[in-house]
Amino acid sequence: MPLSGFRILDLTRIISGPFCTMLLGDLGADVIKAEIPEGDPLRLQGAGREGLSWYFASFNRNKRSITLDLKSPEGRERFEALVRSSDALVENFRPGVLDRLGYDEARLQELRPGLITCAISGFGPDGPYRNRPAFDFIAQAMSGFMSVNGEKDGPPLRSGLPISDLVAGLYGALGVTAALLGREKSGKPERVDVSLTSSMVSLLAYIASHYFATGEVLPRSGNDHPISSPYGLFKARDGDIAIAPSDDTFFGRLMDALGLSELKAEPDFANNVLRVKHRVRLNALVTAKLAEHDCAHWIEVLNQAGVPCGPVYGVDGVFADPQVLSQDMAIDVPHPGHGTVRMLGFPIRMSGSPCRVRYPAPRLGEHNGEIFAEIEPAVAEQG
Amino acid sequence: MPLSGFRILDLTRIISGPFCTMLLGDLGADVIKAEIPEGDPLRLQGAGREGLSWYFASFNRNKRSITLDLKSPEGRERFEALVRSSDALVENFRPGVLDRLGYDEARLQELRPGLITCAISGFGPDGPYRNRPAFDFIAQAMSGFMSVNGEKDGPPLRSGLPISDLVAGLYGALGVTAALLGREKSGKPERVDVSLTSSMVSLLAYIASHYFATGEVLPRSGNDHPISSPYGLFKARDGDIAIAPSDDTFFGRLMDALGLSELKAEPDFANNVLRVKHRVRLNALVTAKLAEHDCAHWIEVLNQAGVPCGPVYGVDGVFADPQVLSQDMAIDVPHPGHGTVRMLGFPIRMSGSPCRVRYPAPRLGEHNGEIFAEIEPAVAEQG
Repeated sequence: MPLSGFRILDLTRIISGPFCTMLLGDLGADVIKAEIPEGDPLRLQGAGREGLSWYFASFNRNKRSITLDLKSPEGRERFEALVRSSDALVENFRPGVLDRLGYDEARLQELRPGLITCAISGFGPDGPYRNRPAFDFIAQAMSGFMSVNGEKDGPPLRSGLPISDLVAGLYGALGVTAALLGREKSGKPERVDVSLTSSMVSLLAYIASHYFATGEVLPRSGNDHPISSPYGLFKARDGDIAIAPSDDTFFGRLMDALGLSELKAEPDFANNVLRVKHRVRLNALVTAKLAEHDCAHWIEVLNQAGVPCGPVYGVDGVFADPQVLSQDMAIDVPHPGHGTVRMLGFPIRMSGSPCRVRYPAPRLGEHNGEIFAEIEPAVAEQG
Repeated sequence: MPLSGFRILDLTRIISGPFCTMLLGDLGADVIKAEIPEGDPLRLQGAGREGLSWYFASFNRNKRSITLDLKSPEGRERFEALVRSSDALVENFRPGVLDRLGYDEARLQELRPGLITCAISGFGPDGPYRNRPAFDFIAQAMSGFMSVNGEKDGPPLRSGLPISDLVAGLYGALGVTAALLGREKSGKPERVDVSLTSSMVSLLAYIASHYFATGEVLPRSGNDHPISSPYGLFKARDGDIAIAPSDDTFFGRLMDALGLSELKAEPDFANNVLRVKHRVRLNALVTAKLAEHDCAHWIEVLNQAGVPCGPVYGVDGVFADPQVLSQDMAIDVPHPGHGTVRMLGFPIRMSGSPCRVRYPAPRLGEHNGEIFAEIEPAVAEQG
């Protein structure tokens, strides 16, 4: 596997960090999850069965767990021995916490020259808010994400997903992997910093470029695309369909497929600018047609005609969909003592060495024995 | 830089693919953007100045542009010479398009043994919907993302950002980088597939694990957290504040900071379950207090007390915020002939070899001369 042979010492907890190290583990890295003696708080959160949090299980596959108390001499000796054998260390403490424990960048490099370190924080390692407590919701609010999420006349809305935690974790995994690749040639260490807030800001795309170019703040537009029509959710007989024709060609296909070819010749709908202007009337005409049949019918017909469209799935619909299932986006993982746990699959498909579950999520300290035995000689040598 | 010395042949257009290759270029790769003679359609989209789309400029920095017509003999010769000199090829055609042009995986490996290929598609390279036209909005709808985005009593909502394009691009960059790292040891090629839909499904986090464990579909909850209270947007005298205390400790800090310490002892608010039950009354008490001062006051006071909170920024607020600016999330890039273009910065901060703009976004075919000259001997040899 691509990251086979690389050891990641993982001090992270909750979501953003564990998602980062899960991605690295899925790609083959040897991830050692070092937990405080009480364990990652996520072990106690979310729905589960028979004492196992399925939320925890799904974010901590492909990791081995040890418990370490960084305030005890024994814990520190073991930690240092592990650093000596690791390629990268990932943490999502608040900035400065690891330093205060005596492990600043200089000390870590002393222990393991060339170590890649990655810190995931709310706002970044420096700047005026570096010490503020952070949280996914706050990053969603302060990054501008919420300002363009929501209905036209409604309030700014957070996403139901912890999107800033996840995107920051993803950037962290990319940063660590790139740094490992760079080190193959340079031999040099690298400190990688990602923050929840910067990660979300980096996704502002045309919202940012429009603002930078014109000084204008684009408003929230709900499901309407501010500069494309027809576009959005439309009601068929039994539910909503998302339809997104992006230009005149797709508009023509949509009209033909709906049996509304005559509208292609209407001056009001001759181009996208006019269609945005006459959005209300056009949407009414489209909706009237869609009401004649069920979603399934229209999705078939419109896709045949080459119009991008699809149903709006709840999570139950997602995991009943044949395409989602064909991409193995739900997988069943045997968890000894807890039966089989269903969890999300691997969004990166590799042909040669596919991501797979090598270990289910570990019990707290499950690998203390094997990992401490492995580092015992190093600990003895130090002591 | 971490990816220095790796050449990426980039056949992508619009957003997801160009975002992927921009991330690789930001990390140091030599990205050659091969465009059809008409150019990437994004060149003509979004706001701009003096004939330059700032949207295009912000997604195509750190790339060199050539024009290639894969249907002409000359274009094919040049393409093949470029494949021979590349480490990876990234494309976001619809599945099968590159095959039909005569460049299936086998042919590409023949040209360049060990080539990493990455395909970004709407639904994946196989499965029943592989040939459907895809679009960010459709992936948002079909992945379940929209089902948990929106107000409690409102419709499912898309995000204003092209979030599935961006997340798929990010997974693509991680996949390519991991494959390059794996190849350093194995020498073996890898085909990397990512899809807009699977990428978004992979972010369902606790929404998915809750459904898998219980069969229950969590509802949309707007800005309220389904299992945490108080939590959400609250009105201060002059605007909204996002407040997210996550447990009893943070709740206590919030009450103390608001001057509502007496509520900590109220039986109705004794734990999170009770606070969720009595959310309406608790929110009213919090809001009444917040109305006494402006946002800036409360954000200062609450952060001092260690309560995660922040303002809800529009894009103008984001780029006026001292923390965002301290993280260099807006950068100014000189574009010869077009003045200085402001664009988003780099969410991955590397200490040793920071991401930087080595080239501004190229003019269409700007590097035809230098790149064709470089591959001329190879083309001549083939011919």
